[in-house]
Amino acid sequence: MTTDTWVEVNENDGFGVENLPYGVFSRPGELPRVGVAIGEYVLDLAELSAAGLVDDRRYFASGSLNAFMVAGRPAWEANRARLTELLTDESYREQVEPHLIPVAEVELLRPFEVADFVDFFSSEHHAANTGRMFRPQGDPLTPNWKRLPVAYHGRSGTVYRSGTPIIRPCGQRRSPGDSEPSFGPSLRLDFEAEVGFVVGVPSVAGRRVPVGSFRDHVFGFVLVNDWSARDLQAWESQPLGPFLGKSFATSVSSWVVPLAALEAARVPSPVQDPVPFPYLQCEEPWGLDLHLEVLINDQVASRPRFASMYWTPPQQLAHATVNGAPLRTGDLFASGTVSGPERDQYGCLLELTWNGREPLELDDGTKRTFLDDGDTVTIRAQAPGVSGSRITLGEVTGTIRPPLP
Amino acid sequence: MTTDTWVEVNENDGFGVENLPYGVFSRPGELPRVGVAIGEYVLDLAELSAAGLVDDRRYFASGSLNAFMVAGRPAWEANRARLTELLTDESYREQVEPHLIPVAEVELLRPFEVADFVDFFSSEHHAANTGRMFRPQGDPLTPNWKRLPVAYHGRSGTVYRSGTPIIRPCGQRRSPGDSEPSFGPSLRLDFEAEVGFVVGVPSVAGRRVPVGSFRDHVFGFVLVNDWSARDLQAWESQPLGPFLGKSFATSVSSWVVPLAALEAARVPSPVQDPVPFPYLQCEEPWGLDLHLEVLINDQVASRPRFASMYWTPPQQLAHATVNGAPLRTGDLFASGTVSGPERDQYGCLLELTWNGREPLELDDGTKRTFLDDGDTVTIRAQAPGVSGSRITLGEVTGTIRPPLP
Repeated sequence: MTTDTWVEVNENDGFGVENLPYGVFSRPGELPRVGVAIGEYVLDLAELSAAGLVDDRRYFASGSLNAFMVAGRPAWEANRARLTELLTDESYREQVEPHLIPVAEVELLRPFEVADFVDFFSSEHHAANTGRMFRPQGDPLTPNWKRLPVAYHGRSGTVYRSGTPIIRPCGQRRSPGDSEPSFGPSLRLDFEAEVGFVVGVPSVAGRRVPVGSFRDHVFGFVLVNDWSARDLQAWESQPLGPFLGKSFATSVSSWVVPLAALEAARVPSPVQDPVPFPYLQCEEPWGLDLHLEVLINDQVASRPRFASMYWTPPQQLAHATVNGAPLRTGDLFASGTVSGPERDQYGCLLELTWNGREPLELDDGTKRTFLDDGDTVTIRAQAPGVSGSRITLGEVTGTIRPPLP
Repeated sequence: MTTDTWVEVNENDGFGVENLPYGVFSRPGELPRVGVAIGEYVLDLAELSAAGLVDDRRYFASGSLNAFMVAGRPAWEANRARLTELLTDESYREQVEPHLIPVAEVELLRPFEVADFVDFFSSEHHAANTGRMFRPQGDPLTPNWKRLPVAYHGRSGTVYRSGTPIIRPCGQRRSPGDSEPSFGPSLRLDFEAEVGFVVGVPSVAGRRVPVGSFRDHVFGFVLVNDWSARDLQAWESQPLGPFLGKSFATSVSSWVVPLAALEAARVPSPVQDPVPFPYLQCEEPWGLDLHLEVLINDQVASRPRFASMYWTPPQQLAHATVNGAPLRTGDLFASGTVSGPERDQYGCLLELTWNGREPLELDDGTKRTFLDDGDTVTIRAQAPGVSGSRITLGEVTGTIRPPLP
């Protein structure tokens, strides 16, 4: 397979034919439909299928990826192979080129409807850092942390598309030294740089999904910002975990990178000790060499490395279903904050500022402990693609707004 | 308004015209549609609307209540008034009677599609009992408990209709005295008797839903069994709360009792001390005098009283939205285990057996610490209706099955 496409593509942008992420877009006066990113264009799959160039209009003349995702791996692979052919074989140029739209001319929409949303806690560095901060007398990790991928359910209804304004939440919080809580806007608003995967093919109640079946169920990967109000979370979280501190908003990227595009990014994950239970044992390497970047107001705040994550996506999916809970199309699973071992790789301000004690200084000289109104946080990532290429994951961005009056 | 219906109704059954709960049903070869329970019948609202006897076929020729629920309070009140007229005015009998179907001839389906599912923890007795069991050295209640209605998100995808078999979940658990966890079927499977309410009218992101707007958003009440695997839950729940111990299954009743039917059941809730924050202050009484019954294999195990709940439904809804998280049609909120102050009013086996130490003896002489395969748990409830009547909430039932091979 040649990696040369007849589309003008800047290799460094990471949207070459080795990537081909899916999304949903619209233009004024038109219905939303499915597209694929190539270079600085989106390829309109609804129009391509109407023109008979790809199969299955019913997947692509749709305002969400859910119809395509439920079609399963054979359909995903066939479509990817066909698109690759259309974009690399010059003889198709005349037919296909009219369906390329400059991405600047479209609005990117939320790519899929979320069924359930589960958030994990799978970075050992993030878990240990937060453990040290909040349980300084004890072990940084709870006794269960290296036995199972700790997780909780989030609010599906507030998983928003990239670009959605993030309204500062209000609620109860108790400042250190106060005996009583107070009510007001969160004073400790944070981002969490995460990587998520979305399920296409559902599973059956009562039957766990083995690690080896990951690729049959999971369509692709997105970036996720699990916005967090640290003060609301701290006050509410005993004994049942985070609730309002998380449920006000979660942002996902507009492009979903299919699993096939990440084959070259797969690396061994860290050695697991103790050896996991059999249902979590995964013979194939499913670490992913994703290089994340978090920017605050266009300035790099952090460069998290996903390869350092302790628990892998197939292990997370196997764990979430081991009790017989079935998967649905649109189930979103996020990794938990991606933090590498080094300070400049931490995936949230809580860690970067060590619970607000050491403000983070940005390049322009401004400092942050937590987010201010007007701050824009953008999470990006790149990964190795096949044949020495690079692929770019869809970024996820959001700007903080004050609470509504 | 007379309470005499021309339908043959046994008053003690609690399905008189003071109730009129909504559900979804089907018969072999027919599409599912919306119905209302009256006596031992279901009144087919799709057929009634096709016959021009009620408005808005689009609500009722539907496999879920969601379309009707989003229509809002004016539509709900108008429909209830019209159905009451049709069922109490003898002159309509000839037209309406053909659309009454014996409930024994239909299959009751899940009444609505669940958007997000939130579970509260709002019984002071349940919270204090479990606090005493698991934190015997400290306060039974955490410092936040009387300041905010503690809650977490559950898995919407495993909210099942009453009658769905409950497959015993497998997972990791650590027996007392063991240093390491083991893997296998849950050995401590429990029920939780809860009362839930479902949202019809969505709200706007960033704008909390005041306690006074409860009736504009909430369609009605259901009974909920929040099945729990106590051993899976205990091992996983630090620091992020319950996950697999809950997500394998939650059952809801097939009938949804509209708010209007519960007007006569409203009572003052317990005095709240400390005085709640303003957003939680509710001038109207919203305690509900619901008398629950939990049966194991047709034998009464417990009689929980909902009037003893500390936090009320409008307070729960206001809290869940105070951070700006919007509501969606089909959002389900469950109360948490309903436990009264007395031992025979506890709403789960964990409390009834005091963490397995004092087996519960049933009438037939059998004993239970936790549930066995083959056990059937049924939760029922009655409440005062208008004019001295009684109304029955739809029961919720489920039978435990062993894990699939």
